[in-house]
Amino acid sequence: MQTTDTTAAAANRPSPGRDETPFTATPREFGVGARLTLAVMADSYADVILEALEQADAAGLLVQTGKVSTYVSGAEQDVLRYLSQVIAAAGRSGAHVSAAVHLSRGCPGGVTCDIPEGGAALYSDIPHVEITGISATADWAIYPLADGGTGSAAADHMRDIYAAIEHAKSTGVTVTEDHYITRLDGDLAQVLQTIAAGWVLVGRSVQHVVTHATLSINSPSAS
Amino acid sequence: MQTTDTTAAAANRPSPGRDETPFTATPREFGVGARLTLAVMADSYADVILEALEQADAAGLLVQTGKVSTYVSGAEQDVLRYLSQVIAAAGRSGAHVSAAVHLSRGCPGGVTCDIPEGGAALYSDIPHVEITGISATADWAIYPLADGGTGSAAADHMRDIYAAIEHAKSTGVTVTEDHYITRLDGDLAQVLQTIAAGWVLVGRSVQHVVTHATLSINSPSAS
Repeated sequence: MQTTDTTAAAANRPSPGRDETPFTATPREFGVGARLTLAVMADSYADVILEALEQADAAGLLVQTGKVSTYVSGAEQDVLRYLSQVIAAAGRSGAHVSAAVHLSRGCPGGVTCDIPEGGAALYSDIPHVEITGISATADWAIYPLADGGTGSAAADHMRDIYAAIEHAKSTGVTVTEDHYITRLDGDLAQVLQTIAAGWVLVGRSVQHVVTHATLSINSPSAS
Repeated sequence: MQTTDTTAAAANRPSPGRDETPFTATPREFGVGARLTLAVMADSYADVILEALEQADAAGLLVQTGKVSTYVSGAEQDVLRYLSQVIAAAGRSGAHVSAAVHLSRGCPGGVTCDIPEGGAALYSDIPHVEITGISATADWAIYPLADGGTGSAAADHMRDIYAAIEHAKSTGVTVTEDHYITRLDGDLAQVLQTIAAGWVLVGRSVQHVVTHATLSINSPSAS
């Protein structure tokens, strides 16, 4: 496992919560981050993947390359820039690329977490990334993991999922609903931004929100 | 999009619910199924993927190949057999293979669903598949999407996630907890069976349960 940590600056960034509970946390403390599995369908896959990872701007991020996926921890804006740069670079090789992207916030899941359970959610801005010139298609799903609450704060995972899908329809990407997923077609940057926007927007009222997308680039079956 | 439907026999299979509400549904009506994205990191990827899909036993299943992933709908046992046979065949090519597996039950998500909202869950047996002889590593996450409830039936997504992880530790695969995911190492069949078992077990009390895993086979970095 290879670890790169360039997060000194980002660690002090305060993030006000929107809940009644006074709550601040850095993105790291709140468990904001991603896992990325990049698959390049060419004999030269190892070189393409290594070069894609090396050329990307990891400023502000902790990056750990594991057996199956690369873990990226830091602020939403930094995470999204990194994912977009890595996947775009692999796409520029011309090879058929498949990327499994997993974004998470509200830290539970097998490792220590110091945020208060339940209520407090973290307010974040929607990240923006530069257009890549690479067309991508994503099969996307979002999971708001709220348990209880009452009144307008009562957990309703389908309400939150539909809100994220409605937002996606306003971003300029082509949105198609299908079994279990919503399909997004557009520039890689717009597709990733739409996914991250749903995750951040739902995350303003739900503490633990996870989103998964499988992206396809240069697919011969897409034409 | 290519569609194969060999489900005439399976469509009549009744599945008793465990909830207080009297409830039966076929796996299809309950939205039981999977999405699979198979990535083969070799120039010959198209042939390997097509052959892997063609040789697998799709009996009882509706199979639709889409732009990003292949949708498979049917009973848990049939879905798991199909996934295992497809991924194993790709692994036998010797190429480095990455597979994004997404299992879902309790049908919401962009398409029509006729099951009662909320309570009723579907009782299913844990599927079993034959050992493949192929070693696999998976980054696995499970999402119980319950909203309310009271008493012992109150939604508690982390309780259900931990129960699935505890069960995984009893199945013979190597279990490692990491950020956002649980890593499973073992024979491909055991890894898939462990993932499906968590999904089915949590699904006995929660209606809508989704699980995602990214599997890696023949990775040069794993040795």
